[in-house]
Amino acid sequence: MSEAVQTLEGWYALHDFRTINWSSWKYVSDEERARSLDELRSFLEEWKAIGESKTGSTVVYSIVGQKADIVFMHLRETLEELNELETAFNKTTFAQHTIPVYSYVSVVELSSYMAKPGVDPMQDPEIVARLKPQLPQTKHICFYPMNKRRSGNDNWYMLGMEERRSMMRSHGMIGRSYAGRVKQIITGSVGLDDWEWGVTLFSDDALTFKKLVYEMRFDEVSARYGDFGDFYVGNRLDAEKFENMLQV
Amino acid sequence: MSEAVQTLEGWYALHDFRTINWSSWKYVSDEERARSLDELRSFLEEWKAIGESKTGSTVVYSIVGQKADIVFMHLRETLEELNELETAFNKTTFAQHTIPVYSYVSVVELSSYMAKPGVDPMQDPEIVARLKPQLPQTKHICFYPMNKRRSGNDNWYMLGMEERRSMMRSHGMIGRSYAGRVKQIITGSVGLDDWEWGVTLFSDDALTFKKLVYEMRFDEVSARYGDFGDFYVGNRLDAEKFENMLQV
Amino acid sequence: MSEAVQTLEGWYALHDFRTINWSSWKYVSDEERARSLDELRSFLEEWKAIGESKTGSTVVYSIVGQKADIVFMHLRETLEELNELETAFNKTTFAQHTIPVYSYVSVVELSSYMAKPGVDPMQDPEIVARLKPQLPQTKHICFYPMNKRRSGNDNWYMLGMEERRSMMRSHGMIGRSYAGRVKQIITGSVGLDDWEWGVTLFSDDALTFKKLVYEMRFDEVSARYGDFGDFYVGNRLDAEKFENMLQV
Amino acid sequence: MSEAVQTLEGWYALHDFRTINWSSWKYVSDEERARSLDELRSFLEEWKAIGESKTGSTVVYSIVGQKADIVFMHLRETLEELNELETAFNKTTFAQHTIPVYSYVSVVELSSYMAKPGVDPMQDPEIVARLKPQLPQTKHICFYPMNKRRSGNDNWYMLGMEERRSMMRSHGMIGRSYAGRVKQIITGSVGLDDWEWGVTLFSDDALTFKKLVYEMRFDEVSARYGDFGDFYVGNRLDAEKFENMLQV
Amino acid sequence: MSEAVQTLEGWYALHDFRTINWSSWKYVSDEERARSLDELRSFLEEWKAIGESKTGSTVVYSIVGQKADIVFMHLRETLEELNELETAFNKTTFAQHTIPVYSYVSVVELSSYMAKPGVDPMQDPEIVARLKPQLPQTKHICFYPMNKRRSGNDNWYMLGMEERRSMMRSHGMIGRSYAGRVKQIITGSVGLDDWEWGVTLFSDDALTFKKLVYEMRFDEVSARYGDFGDFYVGNRLDAEKFENMLQV
Repeated sequence: MSEAVQTLEGWYALHDFRTINWSSWKYVSDEERARSLDELRSFLEEWKAIGESKTGSTVVYSIVGQKADIVFMHLRETLEELNELETAFNKTTFAQHTIPVYSYVSVVELSSYMAKPGVDPMQDPEIVARLKPQLPQTKHICFYPMNKRRSGNDNWYMLGMEERRSMMRSHGMIGRSYAGRVKQIITGSVGLDDWEWGVTLFSDDALTFKKLVYEMRFDEVSARYGDFGDFYVGNRLDAEKFENMLQV
Repeated sequence: MSEAVQTLEGWYALHDFRTINWSSWKYVSDEERARSLDELRSFLEEWKAIGESKTGSTVVYSIVGQKADIVFMHLRETLEELNELETAFNKTTFAQHTIPVYSYVSVVELSSYMAKPGVDPMQDPEIVARLKPQLPQTKHICFYPMNKRRSGNDNWYMLGMEERRSMMRSHGMIGRSYAGRVKQIITGSVGLDDWEWGVTLFSDDALTFKKLVYEMRFDEVSARYGDFGDFYVGNRLDAEKFENMLQV
Repeated sequence: MSEAVQTLEGWYALHDFRTINWSSWKYVSDEERARSLDELRSFLEEWKAIGESKTGSTVVYSIVGQKADIVFMHLRETLEELNELETAFNKTTFAQHTIPVYSYVSVVELSSYMAKPGVDPMQDPEIVARLKPQLPQTKHICFYPMNKRRSGNDNWYMLGMEERRSMMRSHGMIGRSYAGRVKQIITGSVGLDDWEWGVTLFSDDALTFKKLVYEMRFDEVSARYGDFGDFYVGNRLDAEKFENMLQV
Repeated sequence: MSEAVQTLEGWYALHDFRTINWSSWKYVSDEERARSLDELRSFLEEWKAIGESKTGSTVVYSIVGQKADIVFMHLRETLEELNELETAFNKTTFAQHTIPVYSYVSVVELSSYMAKPGVDPMQDPEIVARLKPQLPQTKHICFYPMNKRRSGNDNWYMLGMEERRSMMRSHGMIGRSYAGRVKQIITGSVGLDDWEWGVTLFSDDALTFKKLVYEMRFDEVSARYGDFGDFYVGNRLDAEKFENMLQV
Repeated sequence: MSEAVQTLEGWYALHDFRTINWSSWKYVSDEERARSLDELRSFLEEWKAIGESKTGSTVVYSIVGQKADIVFMHLRETLEELNELETAFNKTTFAQHTIPVYSYVSVVELSSYMAKPGVDPMQDPEIVARLKPQLPQTKHICFYPMNKRRSGNDNWYMLGMEERRSMMRSHGMIGRSYAGRVKQIITGSVGLDDWEWGVTLFSDDALTFKKLVYEMRFDEVSARYGDFGDFYVGNRLDAEKFENMLQV
């Protein structure tokens, strides 16, 4: 009998990291640049409307360092919507001035390690809200993908449910001590993308990302069983800041 | 004496993942774009005819995220046919607007871990049909390549036949519990491509991919012996959707 | 209870490695090249003024070998400042003639393995000065990122605080024996970039980098627990040397 | 005293994998394309003449999938000849329409694990013929590079000669059971290229590659001690098929 | 107390591997190509003069296979000289027709595992000559970088000095048995580049590289403790051969 924990899934997620091709952006005519910005503006407005209608959520951040210039994080009801959104954006003139550098396909997930027996979690409005969340508007974002390790004696998937549950509980307690300072969205991508989970953190103080991730690293779940991908950190881009960024 | 399990092979397979070069696609003349679409249409029709004549099978899906925009999955009788098909497609004008990003060469495979003794599996029409299948037309596709691990104490190829058989049986039971919701095509590529097997899953509900792969990960075959490559997930592109996608 | 050591953080850091596109740099008109140099000069002056006002620090070095031609190392109070600085630079004409090759986002860090109990380190002006330092103007720079290993029996994060403290003490003693010959800036990037720490060494004798890093490698902290990224070594570029370098 | 087995070496080998740049190939003028084909034809004829004069051997295959479109496998007496051949080819107009994707430099090798004591193998004309072979003209080719593993308890180079000899004998027996169906050329590249050996298999039935490599994988030499690189599989290109392939 | 062996260092080294962009080289005008060759010629003469004045040494070899077309190996007194040399070369027109593919920054090194106690090695003129050598003019070159392994039970840096010394002695004896057939230059790059050492071998018989490296691989130092990077092998390019190579 399988020992897999039950998971709950909500909206599908697409993290879309891009670099701006400054050379091409600077050298097009002012007219083309203005048209591109118009196009971009209407996409941003459309995405905002989707958030207001609670049929999805999109945030935009700039990324520090050379890995990327911007990230669009989109939540939508279906994979088809994410795909259409992505294709529509790729057809814009603005997108021709960006270079895709990394994307991550996943779905908002809650694991029920802590579920109370006899309670249907989907009846809990708080849980439903966490599965289909409006993304926060904090000053900073941090994203990284991760796996649970399967290596020699450090094999998460060979542990029993009780052992995993107990470690996850201790892990969760560190997270809870950061409540109010960091908001965390876990998305799962087993069967959807190369890593098993993506962690997206939101905070008004970027140092909190470092404190939280570092403290967790000493926790057995991370220390022995966590394998981490690349880390991306960035600053919120509202419509005005985005336009300033693109001013050349 | 070798402990290799006997395998049955059917049609050769080529998974051909490509990204669309939207910049070039947008900036060619309407005439050239129309000619390109005509070419593409005739290839799609030819591939459909091959399916109808049961001499092969081809499906087309769009891929979510930046890894690829589309995948063509082709099954044919010989490696030469796949090679000719690939070269013919590469010569089209449409192909000049695509960028190859990943391909996988393999052959449809059934392993006979579960074979009944004294029965010739090639006399079983169901088995023959599974070796030369018409690919499903589900809403979603999921593809990933994998190896059986050979690392320290976790070395699949050093296990005895009985131990492998018993683990594969338990593994297969998880798969069977998803019958009707997921269709799975296993293709083998030992000696043909870098990974040992490719798993292509078809389902009308993309979440099923996540549930199935996650549940299997706790099974010893995957937990201790499975190494996985990149995962690709996508949405079905029939001729009409493909043309809509390419409308600029 | 978590065993994470307390850390102190100061200015955020951006290491920005770039290669010069000599082909494009040579083939622009003398006028455009002169304009580009003017732009570059004003950035260098602005960064110098920031150092003088103690609101940050920037140094520029050339890098030996093909990995990069130059590195800008910036320290600033916030992630936003680093991001704006980076975007402003990317919009210059000079930047169009450079190719980004590697960057590293971190924050100046002091770990308090050696902290005296009952003493608030932020009251110590020497510590504050080390958290918001003016970068040295030595002839050579050496940079490399590193992780503490989490692999089988060599798992730093599973060790107790006392064991880690004792190893770090011995490690620090090697460093101290190089005092006066090498200045070391440790920046932390857990939660900010792919590696956990960056080490930037400054010295007037490049051989000291080799002697120091080699001697430390035999120390248990490095020998068993250190994983190292790429090493970059370079020579100081003052404004005059930078202009000579760019003379074509 | 060293436990290295004695090896015998023959002709040097260059495997040269290339992708065809179909976009550029299609858009040159018919005149230039005709000139390019003339050049290619004269190289193919020259290489054929070298085979006839027994001073080397060259075969050409197309490769299935995106890894490459074609491979040239050259055997020559010296490294200088391979280098000149490569440079001469790179200067052709045809080569400008190809993109190098992988190459492998090695030398035909026979190991003397099975050598009879007291017999000088270079007096055996069969052995000499195997060291300077005319490459087969089978329908299919399969190439992969490999290492003997040196990892923890699975360290080939720490085994004694007798243990290695006994494992190689069992390994060779699997190979021998495929005699007549597969021809195998082993080339060694220790000190010449990144992998230790290259295996080039020739067969009229591509499925034989899969059967052979899979069966061997359960053999202890492969299971515990084999690390494998990328696999390339292809179809023979005689002059006529090559010209058809290049017809646009 | 540190167990690091003392090392002696001489000239800094830059290995500069490049591919020739044959397409651009062929299509420039004869005048530009002639000017490029003039520039290249004067660099080669300058480097020759530096060798004659014993202030450095430079050799040029062509590389077999696609990894690179040529390597420049430069020895100079300081990192600044290497950096200036590199920048000056990058500004030439000839360099615009080359693509940098790999470089390695290091310093000529002798380890004193075998040092006689009570003797100052820098008083030994033979040792000084080995630290600031004129590079050989053999027909072939072989280069590879390497690390000493730090992995589980195979951790070189956790061994005691005596154990390391005894293994290095046996290792050195294999090397000595090749004296007269191979000349070896060891350069160290701890703190300077990604690998710990570079091995550059010179011989008139390329097969000697294979025999030497293979024999050493069975020695415990290599078998258990050696991790190797890419191998490059090539043929000597004197001025005349270099010009012939560049004739189009």
